[in-house]
Amino acid sequence: MRAGAGASSSRVGSKVSVRAFAPAGADPLQAGSTLELDDEESRYLIKVRRVRIGEALEVFDAGSVWIGRLVAAGRRARVRIDGPRPPGAPVPTRVVLLGLPDAAATLEAVTGACELGATQLVFVRCERSSGHLPSAGRLERVMRAAMRQCGRPSPPELLGAPPAEPWSLANALAHHPQLPGVFGSVDDRDNLTSLIDSRATEPAEPPMPKVPRLASHRGPPKPSRPASGREVSSAPIDPSSAPIDPSSTPIEALRLLVGPEGGLTPAEIEAAAAAGFVPTRLGPWILRTPTAVVALLARFGSAPAGV
Amino acid sequence: MRAGAGASSSRVGSKVSVRAFAPAGADPLQAGSTLELDDEESRYLIKVRRVRIGEALEVFDAGSVWIGRLVAAGRRARVRIDGPRPPGAPVPTRVVLLGLPDAAATLEAVTGACELGATQLVFVRCERSSGHLPSAGRLERVMRAAMRQCGRPSPPELLGAPPAEPWSLANALAHHPQLPGVFGSVDDRDNLTSLIDSRATEPAEPPMPKVPRLASHRGPPKPSRPASGREVSSAPIDPSSAPIDPSSTPIEALRLLVGPEGGLTPAEIEAAAAAGFVPTRLGPWILRTPTAVVALLARFGSAPAGV
Repeated sequence: MRAGAGASSSRVGSKVSVRAFAPAGADPLQAGSTLELDDEESRYLIKVRRVRIGEALEVFDAGSVWIGRLVAAGRRARVRIDGPRPPGAPVPTRVVLLGLPDAAATLEAVTGACELGATQLVFVRCERSSGHLPSAGRLERVMRAAMRQCGRPSPPELLGAPPAEPWSLANALAHHPQLPGVFGSVDDRDNLTSLIDSRATEPAEPPMPKVPRLASHRGPPKPSRPASGREVSSAPIDPSSAPIDPSSTPIEALRLLVGPEGGLTPAEIEAAAAAGFVPTRLGPWILRTPTAVVALLARFGSAPAGV
Repeated sequence: MRAGAGASSSRVGSKVSVRAFAPAGADPLQAGSTLELDDEESRYLIKVRRVRIGEALEVFDAGSVWIGRLVAAGRRARVRIDGPRPPGAPVPTRVVLLGLPDAAATLEAVTGACELGATQLVFVRCERSSGHLPSAGRLERVMRAAMRQCGRPSPPELLGAPPAEPWSLANALAHHPQLPGVFGSVDDRDNLTSLIDSRATEPAEPPMPKVPRLASHRGPPKPSRPASGREVSSAPIDPSSAPIDPSSTPIEALRLLVGPEGGLTPAEIEAAAAAGFVPTRLGPWILRTPTAVVALLARFGSAPAGV
């Protein structure tokens, strides 16, 4: 895991790019106090990041961030706390329903979800999900590394993640049913028609399905309909509704469904659509699951698109 | 590299998720012809993907895609060509200027740029770039794997990539100067003010800098201004212009600048802004370089945001 990567580091000018976790159960931090880090964090600071005495760093403590300086660099690093970093603006709710890919891709998806501001991440066993899950320990280490790297002091809430069992898609689709939902669709043509027979006769730019406005609230999921063959993604869409517009003010709360490797099955797409999820196109090509997580969160992100 | 991952595979229903490259210099493909693949592609099909006789696959041949079936599976696989896959709609121009991170992250960024539809990818040596570049061979293998995985038959054009030398930022910023440009900014507050001193007194939601409309054409880059201290990203923005709106019709051509690990320096941000690049916020946290490539391309993608 690399630290401080980014389009343009938010630490430009201040150069605080190193972050460590306070030990669980430490005394409450305050300006002027000195904190002793545990072995793992000490090793990270001194051996991995090579922080020197007097250098500034951030300390994560139960979801808050403190600015401090390294004052002792033995086996146990000691940090003098200068003061709290004021919290940023509240982030909007982003519930990611993650159709589980293999273990390595799951960890990549967790990192991306953390970086891009997912607030809740539900591990979902889909029909094409791999049977291999990361261990709870590995998951925690990857999440901590992602938090350190991106500067986020509280992780996304994990549901159905090891050591718990993944959720079924039905349960995941019934989670926060009042929130608008979207799922990634690489190429809507292929959800509507079979591939080889129809491509030649399709228009280059098919009409886009309409999706509900995010401002309007919708009720609990409609009862599932029987699968209707090829028109899996377009059938349940209300043609009178209007497109989601991420360029307006940030959308307060949203559910994002991402399929596993191999994608969602037609029946799963039907179930998602019946639960109110609408397809969103992320480009002409097939995305890996971790890429789709980042792309969906960026597309329907927390910041107005124009900025 | 995993195959067939995605938010929802475009191969749903058709199950064509395996792709191979025709040998360079093979006879032109046509319906009914039979093609012998080279050793590497044969091994990929038969040993890695375990394609069986009669199964459908796609063959990439100099930027076009053919549908075929495996008809012989010896050391050299043979594919009978059923016919061409019609080309999709033209994709919009997306020029990614990649401030080089380390070699592994560079390869990740290349994969993401391929998946999300970058049309040109310029390797740029920034002040904080790592000195370690992937070899030309490794770069080619990763690009081919990404193309196979995402179904894209032509790679992004690479400029300044091994075995060539990376471009300077000045040269990269002068490339396609008529195109609108954006760069990722995690937290605009930190580009405007120093971190520790000012956070407590800043408003939770600072006024967003205005950026030019993408519809309007702009001339060649303005001459660089001397660095003006802290206000590196906001100074050159024309306050009379209006926000970029990716939810309207797809933007035809765009330059996207992504910084290396550690971000762009204040002087580099100044240079980018002087060349007409405007900051875009991708969320509250610091992104890794490969994540920022995917997030920027998704944010300013080829598909209307509402779909």
